Amino acid sequence: MSVSTIKSNKCFGGQLIKLSAKAESYNGLETKFNVFVPEGKGPFPVLYYLAGLTCDEDTGATKGMFEGPAAAHGIALVFPDTSPRGAGIAGEDADWDFGTGAGFYLDATAPAYASHYRGFTYLTQELPELLKKSGLPLDLNRQSIMGHSMGGHGALVLYLKTLALGKYASCSAFAPITNPTLCPWGTKAFAGYLKGGVEEGKEWDATELLRSGQAKGELRIRFDWGSADNFFQAGQLLPENFLGEVKSLGVGGVVGTQREGYDHSYYFIMSFAAEHVACESEFFACCLIQCSQRSQSTQST
Amino acid sequence: MSVSTIKSNKCFGGQLIKLSAKAESYNGLETKFNVFVPEGKGPFPVLYYLAGLTCDEDTGATKGMFEGPAAAHGIALVFPDTSPRGAGIAGEDADWDFGTGAGFYLDATAPAYASHYRGFTYLTQELPELLKKSGLPLDLNRQSIMGHSMGGHGALVLYLKTLALGKYASCSAFAPITNPTLCPWGTKAFAGYLKGGVEEGKEWDATELLRSGQAKGELRIRFDWGSADNFFQAGQLLPENFLGEVKSLGVGGVVGTQREGYDHSYYFIMSFAAEHVACESEFFACCLIQCSQRSQSTQST
Repeated sequence: MSVSTIKSNKCFGGQLIKLSAKAESYNGLETKFNVFVPEGKGPFPVLYYLAGLTCDEDTGATKGMFEGPAAAHGIALVFPDTSPRGAGIAGEDADWDFGTGAGFYLDATAPAYASHYRGFTYLTQELPELLKKSGLPLDLNRQSIMGHSMGGHGALVLYLKTLALGKYASCSAFAPITNPTLCPWGTKAFAGYLKGGVEEGKEWDATELLRSGQAKGELRIRFDWGSADNFFQAGQLLPENFLGEVKSLGVGGVVGTQREGYDHSYYFIMSFAAEHVACESEFFACCLIQCSQRSQSTQST
Repeated sequence: MSVSTIKSNKCFGGQLIKLSAKAESYNGLETKFNVFVPEGKGPFPVLYYLAGLTCDEDTGATKGMFEGPAAAHGIALVFPDTSPRGAGIAGEDADWDFGTGAGFYLDATAPAYASHYRGFTYLTQELPELLKKSGLPLDLNRQSIMGHSMGGHGALVLYLKTLALGKYASCSAFAPITNPTLCPWGTKAFAGYLKGGVEEGKEWDATELLRSGQAKGELRIRFDWGSADNFFQAGQLLPENFLGEVKSLGVGGVVGTQREGYDHSYYFIMSFAAEHVACESEFFACCLIQCSQRSQSTQST
């Protein structure tokens, strides 16, 4: 397990570094990730960004507009890829919403995918080890996670499944898929990746993880979605289900906000990137209350 | 000459609107452009962004990170394409640095290109008319122009050639090609687009426009380039020639700054986007002096 540097670009006084490694979690396939390291000595807390369907490690780094705010707050950013690439599984490249570029950040159990599609293990265990090996000035004891759409699902699920371990200080998401066992993207993914299909998918469903009581600990979650998001309108995101479960359980620490007129694009993400990073910065400092109070038009807390 | 809306995305409280028109300057070919209109009534001053080789109307809009600062300063942004598309000229698509995506923002005179490649006329005359027809709340009496690389060349040349007319309040550029008659990209472009070749290219060369005395008026130009920019290192940009001419002529109002360690990428652009937009905002308010004073490590004024 070694890490090599592909290139480095100076950015907001720091460096945007593209790295490569052969990932054991991906059965030895090469995977790439970008790391933004702010100017200064560090070590810097680490904020992961998980991208959505069809995206890769460059999407958030080039279109999300997170680097400026991260530089201002002294936070490092890590942008992984959205799936293994080149596994050579039959049908892997047939659809845009399944297979390559659409790993759903889970550990597959269906025989065809189980040896390569292990995004959960890669992200929660192997990638932090790779980051340690990189020698970059990162404080891996202070991690947080965010994401968009499928990546918002990934951020919520990784956060909730590791909540008792305290792996991530908080979770932030843009237009996340919050109840994938009940939406077309999720049911397709679970049917393909999991031998137990959609029923097994409840283990990878943020709303179900809340409902089942598996996510133990104080929650620090914020997410936004746009009222003009066609995928929200089509029932792919279902934030109302997640927030309904939060309300039903009577737990705090979750701020979900509908942003009027915004859609699913990176124009939406860039509009709130600075606010999310500022909020993560407060989360790193354990100040959820201030963050919640600052947010407007809150739907549920 | 009519304008149609392809789509609109809410962005930083305003709208990023993709428009389409059949451009007379491009011999009737369809061309697309993005317009960012801030929240509010307007009319808003207009800042054009000309992109570089291989780019299109989306590049600056998605990767430049200009919208946030533009929203904060109440400035509209216009992102045109980098050439006509689909002219069907033999050899037009053979190279990445000539033809499609590489129009160099000039009016071609070589017979093969003269009827379609008229970017100067399109940008200075037709596009403002199209923007008027769009009905968007734009103040076309307050325009300014910026660009990157080939687009930086375009911004400088459009600004200097129309200086006496006061078409643009100011010019701002990232890693511009400032002396194209003396660099490989420029000589190739001029040899192909102009019947008089590189000699005729002096009419489209920012340094030559200064030297010949054609650019009459008070200058308001700022540009940045990176010391680690491989195209700067390869002699494609030649900022030293442009700044040398400024010094030789003893004119003021030009701020050229080398940014240590930055390269030619959008990671460089995004790092200084807010500063350029803030400076343009001051230019719109006719405050060049404050802007110049704020800039550090100035090489020439």
